[in-house]
Amino acid sequence: MTETKNGVVRYIEVEKPVLGNNTGDDQRLEQALKRELNASRVKIPYTVLRHLPSRLRAWDFRAKAVVFKERRSWRLVDLLDPESSSSILGAALDIGTTRIVIQLLDLETGQELGRTGLDNPQASIGPDVLARIHHSGREGGLDQLQDLVIRAVNENLDRLCREQGRKKEEVFLIAGAGNTAMTHLFLGMEAFEIIKEPYIPCVNIPDTLRAERLGLGIHPRGLVFLFPNIGSYFGGDLLSGIFFADLDKKESPCIMVDVGTNAEIVVGCRDWLMACAGAAGPALEGGMSKMGMTAGPGVIDRVALDPETGMLTIHTIEDKKPVGICGSGMIDLAAALFAGGMIDIRGKFHPDKCTGRLEERDGILSYILVDPENSGTGRAISLSQVDLNSLTSSKAAMYTILEVIVRNTAGLEFEDLEKFYVAGTFGSFIDPESAIFIGMLPDIDRSGFEVLGNSSLGGAARLLREPTAFDRVMEIRESITYIELNVNQEFMNMFSGAKFFPHTDRARFPSVEKGLLKNHPTG
Amino acid sequence: MTETKNGVVRYIEVEKPVLGNNTGDDQRLEQALKRELNASRVKIPYTVLRHLPSRLRAWDFRAKAVVFKERRSWRLVDLLDPESSSSILGAALDIGTTRIVIQLLDLETGQELGRTGLDNPQASIGPDVLARIHHSGREGGLDQLQDLVIRAVNENLDRLCREQGRKKEEVFLIAGAGNTAMTHLFLGMEAFEIIKEPYIPCVNIPDTLRAERLGLGIHPRGLVFLFPNIGSYFGGDLLSGIFFADLDKKESPCIMVDVGTNAEIVVGCRDWLMACAGAAGPALEGGMSKMGMTAGPGVIDRVALDPETGMLTIHTIEDKKPVGICGSGMIDLAAALFAGGMIDIRGKFHPDKCTGRLEERDGILSYILVDPENSGTGRAISLSQVDLNSLTSSKAAMYTILEVIVRNTAGLEFEDLEKFYVAGTFGSFIDPESAIFIGMLPDIDRSGFEVLGNSSLGGAARLLREPTAFDRVMEIRESITYIELNVNQEFMNMFSGAKFFPHTDRARFPSVEKGLLKNHPTG
Repeated sequence: MTETKNGVVRYIEVEKPVLGNNTGDDQRLEQALKRELNASRVKIPYTVLRHLPSRLRAWDFRAKAVVFKERRSWRLVDLLDPESSSSILGAALDIGTTRIVIQLLDLETGQELGRTGLDNPQASIGPDVLARIHHSGREGGLDQLQDLVIRAVNENLDRLCREQGRKKEEVFLIAGAGNTAMTHLFLGMEAFEIIKEPYIPCVNIPDTLRAERLGLGIHPRGLVFLFPNIGSYFGGDLLSGIFFADLDKKESPCIMVDVGTNAEIVVGCRDWLMACAGAAGPALEGGMSKMGMTAGPGVIDRVALDPETGMLTIHTIEDKKPVGICGSGMIDLAAALFAGGMIDIRGKFHPDKCTGRLEERDGILSYILVDPENSGTGRAISLSQVDLNSLTSSKAAMYTILEVIVRNTAGLEFEDLEKFYVAGTFGSFIDPESAIFIGMLPDIDRSGFEVLGNSSLGGAARLLREPTAFDRVMEIRESITYIELNVNQEFMNMFSGAKFFPHTDRARFPSVEKGLLKNHPTG
Repeated sequence: MTETKNGVVRYIEVEKPVLGNNTGDDQRLEQALKRELNASRVKIPYTVLRHLPSRLRAWDFRAKAVVFKERRSWRLVDLLDPESSSSILGAALDIGTTRIVIQLLDLETGQELGRTGLDNPQASIGPDVLARIHHSGREGGLDQLQDLVIRAVNENLDRLCREQGRKKEEVFLIAGAGNTAMTHLFLGMEAFEIIKEPYIPCVNIPDTLRAERLGLGIHPRGLVFLFPNIGSYFGGDLLSGIFFADLDKKESPCIMVDVGTNAEIVVGCRDWLMACAGAAGPALEGGMSKMGMTAGPGVIDRVALDPETGMLTIHTIEDKKPVGICGSGMIDLAAALFAGGMIDIRGKFHPDKCTGRLEERDGILSYILVDPENSGTGRAISLSQVDLNSLTSSKAAMYTILEVIVRNTAGLEFEDLEKFYVAGTFGSFIDPESAIFIGMLPDIDRSGFEVLGNSSLGGAARLLREPTAFDRVMEIRESITYIELNVNQEFMNMFSGAKFFPHTDRARFPSVEKGLLKNHPTG
């Protein structure tokens, strides 16, 4: 009946009481749970204990137990009729600064029942972490921000459950992961020290909480767990991703790059793990987040250069009329423009090669990708030199951070990496070929690249399926060496070289060389 | 400033954050508490964590911490301004079937600030445990019973605090002890299995709970702890008493008799502890509880026989006109009547010796102790043969249980006992001389007797002063051998002998012998 032998749903049998043995129902339940979970402690909630005698006897001392592992011990969530047929539900959350994704799971089979994504409603307060944390310091601001996200999760989880003919009160466990700021705002924890030197989170290791304490309208005894943070710039989302990618079990060094609002990078294997987050330092301000718009119908997600005609071809999501361009489209576009010689190695438009496609406004050149008559918005879709400069900075930052952590810190060459995992919603759509071509990602064997998808959500869901892995998550957390990105002169020198297309040192990108022969022969 | 170095109030200093160390405020607080408490784990509540950053910084990383030890770990109750001058309050509870006693404590100095007693309002549902547990099984009955006791504690604690110019919201910790049934009803735990074979409590080891979960209106973060039970007939009140009497530290065997609603007995020393509760078996039904009325103004608490005149003299509480007689008065009265020959060795009135004091109604003889004209109620205060029979049964039960546990079970003689502790409200007022004279207590050296007072309350208060003793309480619980009183033929034979005054075997009461020469020469 149950496939999750190590899961959160267990069938237990409690020793029946006999005369001459004073052991209470509480103790006999604890013994049964300890035996089943092979644990030295199991916490049993007051609300389950209160009515234990009548339930145990009605069920002939057998029960279906919903359990969860937490930092200090196992914890019983609820005890149910062993014959009840409706399955136990759980939800995994990815609490992103921009997007929130909710996944509904059957905790008995481990199967995904549904998934939904929504914009983080805190965006109405501020688009980025900084603005929201500032707001959280105002009177009532923290409660307001928490309320926004909790209410959105409640509403969307409710809809997700109803779509499956279920109710959100049947959800017993929520596991979520977010960056450090989103974790704080979700939990309603004071967040302002995160952005003030010396950048100290209120909480790095949140306890498992009763969901009702956060206002989450799931089962009254339901629990919620958020992945721990490592520091202000290294959140639970990344830890969840490392767990999801099994990075801590690899024999050879691998790298995982989570390109979300920030670029976060982990490199390592079973013997060591190093991490670095790219939100530090003014050179990287805004990071990857300013590259393009959010994916949606009509958004240009692929751009290619026809080598015969030298013309650009575009692809839009759902093949709708183009309305804008997203990050992966911009990287493709930059690569295509560079390949076609429309931009030079400094990332500047080359007016001679852009015949008829450039327009100037207020002294700023823009490349017209889609004419107004072909656009879904009635306005031209273009890439300005300002957009391009921003992309150049971002790609240079990405490459420099990779170089700093892989070469300068771990002492490896990019070729030593067995796998190059790309995680995060944004990262999932990047074409490695384009990213390498502009010098954003290193020029390694393409077969090493692997898209992980939403690894933060994946790790959260996995912990609901394999609660025994909890200790592994804590071990990963303990074992990671966090590298503060030191934006010193050396970094700025490396960054300067990376601001060229693909790089001042073209020898680093041997596979790009061929594509450059025609339009950029001198390097 | 603080005298309670091992107490629940501690002054801590949290390591200040520095750049390059990602340790969260949560972790640095945990480290400071672990260091202060010399503990491997300290649980920090969500509500304290939420606002930790601003508080730690406002207090320059110092704080006054209210802590409590529980089964699994230490627990932080709250964190306060280290400069705040108002002291932390706590309350100890003795939750008796008949009476509830509340003691208010200053947790920083350990001093008692006040104390109040009240009748257990559950008496309106039923006078005894049995009636209340039956009621708890009815729809809404459990909640009703819990509500009665919680409300009474709230009201009385509120008054007690106000008398000290304080508020009950300044109380951070409550430690209570009661018998197993009272513990269940206080916690709102299903209790009906306690009185049904095989007599299994719902909970033997209650967790420390947030007080608001029980509706206790103390500090919002306040905690409540009840002493664990050992079985249905061996409650936390007795465990608290053992702890209070330090029975587990004695070099030579001692005995503790808690004469409350039931007679509960513990014998032992640092090497072993045995316990037995006297509510088992039909011979003992009602136990000590039917002996007399509750103490109060005008109640006769002492009776003596003038050896010259052969007349009885009485003493009433507060020297008011007599309105009735309490347990200790009845034991004195029985001893006096027996000494004066008014009752024989079978416990029957001797009409020849009671000239003018006996009256008969419906065939039942009664001894008139106070004439209507001298009584505060306008009615005679008398002792009927039915009352006397009940007292005879009770005193015989008491002696037999003592004999079973000391002689038959522990294999000791009464003379081997270094101390004979008498605990419980009722027990505190018994005159050992009278109790020995009627054969209720064994005939040992009077200097061995020691009145403990309300040891259940005393143990609860002590745990608030010395939370480090928590583990000792759990060890006592683990080490006690609980003796089910086996009411077999042998017991009934022993009981029969003990129903005589003082006993069929008069050699057991050598010191009583002299007083018997005149009126009971043959024995």
